[in-house]
Amino acid sequence: MTKPLNFQQIIMTLNEYWADHGCLVWQPYSEKVGAGTANPATTLRALGPEPWNVAYVEPSFRPDDGRYGDNPNRMQMHIQFQVILKPDPGNPQELYLNSLYALGIKREEHDIRFVEDNWESPALGAWGLGWEVWLDGLEITQYTYFQQFGGFDLDPVAVELTYGLERIAIYLQGVDSVWNIDWDGRHTYGDILLRQEVEHCTYDFEVADVDRLMQMYDLFEQEAKACLANGLVIPAHDHVLRCSHTFNLLDSRGAIGVTERASYFARMRDLSRQVAAAFLEQREAAGYPFIKINNDQYHTGASHISSPGSPSLDPSPFVLEIGTEELPAQDVTAAIEQLTDAVPPLLDDLRLDHGQVRVAGTPRRLVVYVEDLAPRQRDEGQAVKGPPAHAAFDRDGTPTKAAVGFARGQGVDVADLEMRDVAGGQYVFAIRRVEGRHAADVLSEEIPALIARLGFSRSMRWNESAVSFSRPIRWLVCLLGDQLIPFEYAGVTSGRGSRGPRPAGSPPIEIKAAADYFFTLAGQGIIVDKDERRAAIQEQIQSLATEVEGVVPDDPALLEEVTNLVEQPTALRGQFDPAYLSLPEPVLITVMKKHQRYFPIVRAERRVVRDEPHPTRVARDTLLLPYFVAVRNGGTEHLDVVRQGNEGVLRARFADADFFFNADTRQPLESFLPRLDTLLFQEQLGSMLDKTRRLEQLAPTIGEELGLSAREMETTLRAAHLCKADLATQMVVELTSLQGVMGREYALRSGEPQAVAIAIDEHYLPRFAGDQLPATRPGLILGLASRLDSLIGLFAVGLAPTGSADPYGLRRDALGLVTVLIETETDYSVAGGLQAAARLLPDHVEVSQESMMACQDFIKRRLMGVLRERGLRHDVVQAALAERGDNPYCCLEAAQDLQVWVEREDWEPLLVAYARCKRIVRPIIDDVRSYHLDTHAFVEEASRDLWAAYQRTTEGLGEDRDVDEVMTALQQLTDPINAFFDKVLVMADDEALRRNRLALVYAIAAIPDGVVDLSQVMGF
Amino acid sequence: MTKPLNFQQIIMTLNEYWADHGCLVWQPYSEKVGAGTANPATTLRALGPEPWNVAYVEPSFRPDDGRYGDNPNRMQMHIQFQVILKPDPGNPQELYLNSLYALGIKREEHDIRFVEDNWESPALGAWGLGWEVWLDGLEITQYTYFQQFGGFDLDPVAVELTYGLERIAIYLQGVDSVWNIDWDGRHTYGDILLRQEVEHCTYDFEVADVDRLMQMYDLFEQEAKACLANGLVIPAHDHVLRCSHTFNLLDSRGAIGVTERASYFARMRDLSRQVAAAFLEQREAAGYPFIKINNDQYHTGASHISSPGSPSLDPSPFVLEIGTEELPAQDVTAAIEQLTDAVPPLLDDLRLDHGQVRVAGTPRRLVVYVEDLAPRQRDEGQAVKGPPAHAAFDRDGTPTKAAVGFARGQGVDVADLEMRDVAGGQYVFAIRRVEGRHAADVLSEEIPALIARLGFSRSMRWNESAVSFSRPIRWLVCLLGDQLIPFEYAGVTSGRGSRGPRPAGSPPIEIKAAADYFFTLAGQGIIVDKDERRAAIQEQIQSLATEVEGVVPDDPALLEEVTNLVEQPTALRGQFDPAYLSLPEPVLITVMKKHQRYFPIVRAERRVVRDEPHPTRVARDTLLLPYFVAVRNGGTEHLDVVRQGNEGVLRARFADADFFFNADTRQPLESFLPRLDTLLFQEQLGSMLDKTRRLEQLAPTIGEELGLSAREMETTLRAAHLCKADLATQMVVELTSLQGVMGREYALRSGEPQAVAIAIDEHYLPRFAGDQLPATRPGLILGLASRLDSLIGLFAVGLAPTGSADPYGLRRDALGLVTVLIETETDYSVAGGLQAAARLLPDHVEVSQESMMACQDFIKRRLMGVLRERGLRHDVVQAALAERGDNPYCCLEAAQDLQVWVEREDWEPLLVAYARCKRIVRPIIDDVRSYHLDTHAFVEEASRDLWAAYQRTTEGLGEDRDVDEVMTALQQLTDPINAFFDKVLVMADDEALRRNRLALVYAIAAIPDGVVDLSQVMGF
Repeated sequence: MTKPLNFQQIIMTLNEYWADHGCLVWQPYSEKVGAGTANPATTLRALGPEPWNVAYVEPSFRPDDGRYGDNPNRMQMHIQFQVILKPDPGNPQELYLNSLYALGIKREEHDIRFVEDNWESPALGAWGLGWEVWLDGLEITQYTYFQQFGGFDLDPVAVELTYGLERIAIYLQGVDSVWNIDWDGRHTYGDILLRQEVEHCTYDFEVADVDRLMQMYDLFEQEAKACLANGLVIPAHDHVLRCSHTFNLLDSRGAIGVTERASYFARMRDLSRQVAAAFLEQREAAGYPFIKINNDQYHTGASHISSPGSPSLDPSPFVLEIGTEELPAQDVTAAIEQLTDAVPPLLDDLRLDHGQVRVAGTPRRLVVYVEDLAPRQRDEGQAVKGPPAHAAFDRDGTPTKAAVGFARGQGVDVADLEMRDVAGGQYVFAIRRVEGRHAADVLSEEIPALIARLGFSRSMRWNESAVSFSRPIRWLVCLLGDQLIPFEYAGVTSGRGSRGPRPAGSPPIEIKAAADYFFTLAGQGIIVDKDERRAAIQEQIQSLATEVEGVVPDDPALLEEVTNLVEQPTALRGQFDPAYLSLPEPVLITVMKKHQRYFPIVRAERRVVRDEPHPTRVARDTLLLPYFVAVRNGGTEHLDVVRQGNEGVLRARFADADFFFNADTRQPLESFLPRLDTLLFQEQLGSMLDKTRRLEQLAPTIGEELGLSAREMETTLRAAHLCKADLATQMVVELTSLQGVMGREYALRSGEPQAVAIAIDEHYLPRFAGDQLPATRPGLILGLASRLDSLIGLFAVGLAPTGSADPYGLRRDALGLVTVLIETETDYSVAGGLQAAARLLPDHVEVSQESMMACQDFIKRRLMGVLRERGLRHDVVQAALAERGDNPYCCLEAAQDLQVWVEREDWEPLLVAYARCKRIVRPIIDDVRSYHLDTHAFVEEASRDLWAAYQRTTEGLGEDRDVDEVMTALQQLTDPINAFFDKVLVMADDEALRRNRLALVYAIAAIPDGVVDLSQVMGF
Repeated sequence: MTKPLNFQQIIMTLNEYWADHGCLVWQPYSEKVGAGTANPATTLRALGPEPWNVAYVEPSFRPDDGRYGDNPNRMQMHIQFQVILKPDPGNPQELYLNSLYALGIKREEHDIRFVEDNWESPALGAWGLGWEVWLDGLEITQYTYFQQFGGFDLDPVAVELTYGLERIAIYLQGVDSVWNIDWDGRHTYGDILLRQEVEHCTYDFEVADVDRLMQMYDLFEQEAKACLANGLVIPAHDHVLRCSHTFNLLDSRGAIGVTERASYFARMRDLSRQVAAAFLEQREAAGYPFIKINNDQYHTGASHISSPGSPSLDPSPFVLEIGTEELPAQDVTAAIEQLTDAVPPLLDDLRLDHGQVRVAGTPRRLVVYVEDLAPRQRDEGQAVKGPPAHAAFDRDGTPTKAAVGFARGQGVDVADLEMRDVAGGQYVFAIRRVEGRHAADVLSEEIPALIARLGFSRSMRWNESAVSFSRPIRWLVCLLGDQLIPFEYAGVTSGRGSRGPRPAGSPPIEIKAAADYFFTLAGQGIIVDKDERRAAIQEQIQSLATEVEGVVPDDPALLEEVTNLVEQPTALRGQFDPAYLSLPEPVLITVMKKHQRYFPIVRAERRVVRDEPHPTRVARDTLLLPYFVAVRNGGTEHLDVVRQGNEGVLRARFADADFFFNADTRQPLESFLPRLDTLLFQEQLGSMLDKTRRLEQLAPTIGEELGLSAREMETTLRAAHLCKADLATQMVVELTSLQGVMGREYALRSGEPQAVAIAIDEHYLPRFAGDQLPATRPGLILGLASRLDSLIGLFAVGLAPTGSADPYGLRRDALGLVTVLIETETDYSVAGGLQAAARLLPDHVEVSQESMMACQDFIKRRLMGVLRERGLRHDVVQAALAERGDNPYCCLEAAQDLQVWVEREDWEPLLVAYARCKRIVRPIIDDVRSYHLDTHAFVEEASRDLWAAYQRTTEGLGEDRDVDEVMTALQQLTDPINAFFDKVLVMADDEALRRNRLALVYAIAAIPDGVVDLSQVMGF
């Protein structure tokens, strides 16, 4: 075994490798940058049409990541190796994997994965899509198709590779900490950099002077502007970098308040945009010299010259394989769904008979397989309308000139003309036989459009075709039988050449015929079918859990994600130091699942682990076992290496969590409150601290309404004070999904009463459909308060959700509000709550009537959804909503009761009778309300009878009448109503008489008011 | 021929090379630095006892060097490659030369030279000694033995190599400009960096905002202090670097005034010192971990195991060769002189008979060769004093017990005791024979001390021996006949192993016997003897000049320097573009000589080129020819390559001069005046602008005294206004020795009258002994004014020269003052001038009586020197100085005249007679002066006669009487004086009588007063 490369050899090897592959070797920048991206060799050179291939080292400073050297691989300074390839050379992943090979990382011995990771910096107007590259679970590289910078589209797109050199060195050298990396054969990384790391941390977190930093920022910004005014791109960029680093320092000092943050971001974005614009202008003025210089770009991998094969005469299997770089997990699912929906109707439209359609997919291929696809389209008779019958034939039935001419024109015999009725008239039609075309020809034309119609939540460009897709398409296989169906899409020509799995180096595979497809792929170890893959994984992980007397709790979402991350799943069990079990379980689980996509293992008796387990309801004696299951992409070879790698990664992750936990628990939870002022809730609505202050007022208001006890009120007040504090803790900053959970944990450790701790946690409940609900009233009330504040506040400032955009999660808030009220059977007026919340908003936020109504409607729509999901009839729901929509629980009750009534046999007469009343007054309802009912002025008996019945049946119907009471009354009034209308003409000419009759009818029509609106019920 | 390395390959090759030689490969720093030295990998790691070997690239920013990309190899940003070797590996030069070899620079094909270049940064409390490494005349590396940083001695010393990567690339690739360097096989250096260079220049010189920079400086400084207060070394250092870069920007914006500059420097020095101290403390506290890590250091070159040889019985030649790294030229001269003086007396003291002593030397060896050195010391008789004779022998002459005991004690026979007279008494002596020791033994002991006694203007340490020498000693040869004389010095053991010339790779040479030494070295092409080498060079350069019908003007200083730069001189003639002849000739000559040590060639008719030629006196039709002669170290192989290299270097130098000239002449000379405020004269005495304002007042005062015409006065005033303005021009900033010369040139181009231009130039004359003198009175007067101002000003603020320290060049000023007055025969009182100058000094500068007197004395001592050098007798000079020291020209006249008198035969009687008068009054001179001479009260005839003679001889002797007049008078008084004293007792008891006689004598004694003081003359 050769000695692994030391740190400087890794750098030198990468320099050599990329120089050999056409890169200019560049140097670290002369300013402190947060990433190699900030070096103008990326930020600027990636812009514009010129080719640019560059590689360089970049020590990158991120003050917030500082851990005083205590963490095995997290530091405020780490050393990146950055590569830019512009344009896309066609095989960037292969180039990258070969560079790892050059370092001694052999793809066949490891689990190398491309795991979706996108990058966005609103502050720089920049984003890109790509992956984290995982080496046995360890993120070693950020791989991005850089799409935009400074608000400018990158055209062509640049491939950006950012190697984490320390990670790679740790792995290669098999050391347990960055500080033990061998740098040069003598010194370790720690020998050289540990002391400096600690010093920088001390400076960044403790010493850097906030006032002075703010002054510096302003000075740098002014210099940047002066540079821009003089067209000086690089000096301007230097000052933007200084602004950025200074901002980062301010941030790590906790000195950035809400207003400041927003304004700093806007200022940096503006400067970045100007720098980008100035650079682009400069290059254009220079005539883009690099275009001329670089005309010998990389070539894409060997292009397969595929034999066309022979057209089939019989139905044959068809396969389409879209070969891609690793798709994000959810995009695999989405694409499979879309293809499943789209292919059968497409084939039908194309008149291609077919057998079963099977859609499959892995991260690297989307597959449509059709059995027995017809070799040709069905023939079709196409009718062409000709002249009217009377003009086509004379009285003898002899064809006229018109008919003859028409027939000739359509190429049919006059005798074959048919007569058809069209819109009341009779016309002659020529029936043209359209012969079906070869399936291959039709598919050649249609498949590009099929692919183009696939939609993803985020798409990207990568090459000059300017096609957008989830990730780059690198090959296309399309066969009908053994016949190649030729087409071109996104710069790729279809063929027979598929590729094997990554661990084998993606070897080319020839698909001879469609029928061979699944078999051939299976021969490579690839399970193309998603369900099969999922089942295989499920079986493997449970079997591994059983071996240690545990189970992997069901987790369909994680299973689905993992299924979409691998082609060749092999599960392995790793373990971790049981000492970490002393950390809160949700922390461990979150780290395993969210960061690493590992399955946790619990003792066999515990069957359910919630996505966000709540220690509130789980005894603190740990049920988690010190194991995890990871699923590797690849076979069983070198599994020990992969396991050790994954264990090492988890160790570092847990060490980090431990660091956060210890840091957070050094001070009471309450002490984090001031930092909430640095967390923006929303610009106009202020910081999370402002929101907290509102909750401290709103929660008791609601509590009073709901009749809290003095003790509950005390709990509510304290919990309101503390409920957002955990957002400022390091653990929650790092793992946002632990909000509330950590608040509870930290509150208990800070000596807060248990009830307060529970309320803090519970106020987030339910977090998702089917989640648990607050068990205590303080938790319930705090949750209401928080949601009401968000809803009315964001609606007021014009941030109501539109289309699918819901950046503040208001749908979730509204749904949570409704759910909580219903499930806890709480009788509560949402409008009242919103108004109370509105009164507490900042003075400068005006709550218009429109926004208040819109907000209420928004919540009612969620309520409608909830009621419908409970199986209630649409009309019934509408009837209840119309009257009780403001009070979800009461609304539910009304709807449920009404549903019983509408299903009764005697319902129809009841509704008809009631409708007779309601219909007559409805058009003039506003007038009628003011009519005085003079019970002595009745002329007819029927009127008097009806009045008497009304009095009798409505006796005892109070304000809080329910549906049953109302309906019973109406049922008893059915006959008197009908008798009344049969005998009395309500709309008498005499005005007084008429008004008195209408007043009587109105009284009856108003009986369900405030309970249900029967006019919404079907049959009304 | 293989393709030369591109730029990135050069870097990668150096990284590999130094990594292979035990260096840690490091990265450029994350701050803008002026040099790789500022990277903490040098600045800090070079401190303290720990070993440290590192190599890295460093883009270095020096705003002042910006040329907007117009210069072929001068930029505000250049890319260094920095290597630190600590401790000295013993063979750093060889390691370095091998690194060049790795780049494709073969030592045998080029002229690679180590030319003295020392580095000092008072602002950082840092210095080092070393060289520029020249590749065919092109400086490609700075090679320094780094001695001190932050005021702390480096122990061990660090070897610092700073490669100028662009220079190397230009040379390797044979391109004519940095912008055309091939970076990666596709892009040029200019493609990547030209635009950015222009932008940085624009920013540095035009856009950077002075106010904001000053604010930044303060903020950075405060942060640095805060870091230091918290023990944070690296963050503190970062802020010091920011201070430094900000200061450089302020400087390039011309914004640093006198007070600011001094204070900024003091502030930076203070911070650097604190950073260094904090780092040292930190490492000590950590227990110097790198000492443990690095225990496998380089080995010095093979240590020769030399055979001892056999002791000679006959006189034999002796040789001592001290093998060194390249000595500075003046140190070769100094060492040869010192050895020449020291060796013969040393051998005499050691009682070693010897023949001729020959001392020789080259930059790499100092050689002492002694012919016929005795194999042993001469024996010596040592006499030991015993008892007195009378106690040693009884009356019979029989030895007493005392004598016997003494003889036994001394180990001699009683019979051998000798009798000697000592201080009036007779004693017995025992004569002990001391036998001479072997010469080899004696020399072994004494030679280390001989070497240690060699003194140099600056010495350095380099290894753990802590010996100081001009440059490291790398080998020692010491042989007597064929016998090795063993000793150890500076960690080197003497042997037989010498080394051959650099171009041959310094091959080991064995010296078998001393007699072979010169022959063996000559066989290697080395001319060890300095005079021989000089003659060879002189012959070669003149011969090359003759070929182009020119001559190389005599220039002994340059010839001496060049002689000391080579071991194997081969002259070559290069040429340059005649277009550059349009630049002022002094500029071209200065560039050739000062920067490149080239000999200029002039048309044959022009025989003398002054060191600083004055166009004042040289017609503007150029006499310079477009050629130069360089002297290469090495043979005639590849001479074309070397010539082309040198021509390229000169081209770049001239281009730079052209840049300065064009920049400077874009505006009138007067417009540079305001920038004089940014040039410090002396902190208390203000800026050069302050000095200029004083000269504008002082020069006319002197001019009036010396009777200038109105026109001359006008010229003087204008010239005073402008005389220092050229100090602010780029040309003079770059080439200080051109001050005045450029002032004249620029004044003419600015339309100033010719007389003014001439006066500006002339006021610096003479610049050195033997230089020309001002030809015009305005030039003379301005020179006087400038020197008087400097002298009294600097004496007043306590900066009089002490010992050899004369940082302000006051010796030169005083000498110039004296010379100018004498040579222009100007009758002028220095004291008066100093007082006038003193009155113009700033108010806060008080001129004490002591400093005024000290200043006058200082000038008088220079005058004394001048007079003595003219061959005047010491006593005569003293006599003149005593009375006319204040007025150099008059003093010279007096001394010259007196010298004639003292050499006359009749001088002695004259002096004796005069002395009779002077001696009697001298003790009571103050009283006597007040005695009234009553000519009627004389009693004796002799008195009356003397009085009459006095009256007769002094008739007509006025205030301006000269020596001849005085002496003639005294001669005539000789007889009367003698007669008087023979007959009259001056010191009569009668007081009135006595006083009257004394008054008469005094009158005669006072005759020479104000002319000469005859009491100083020998024989008085």
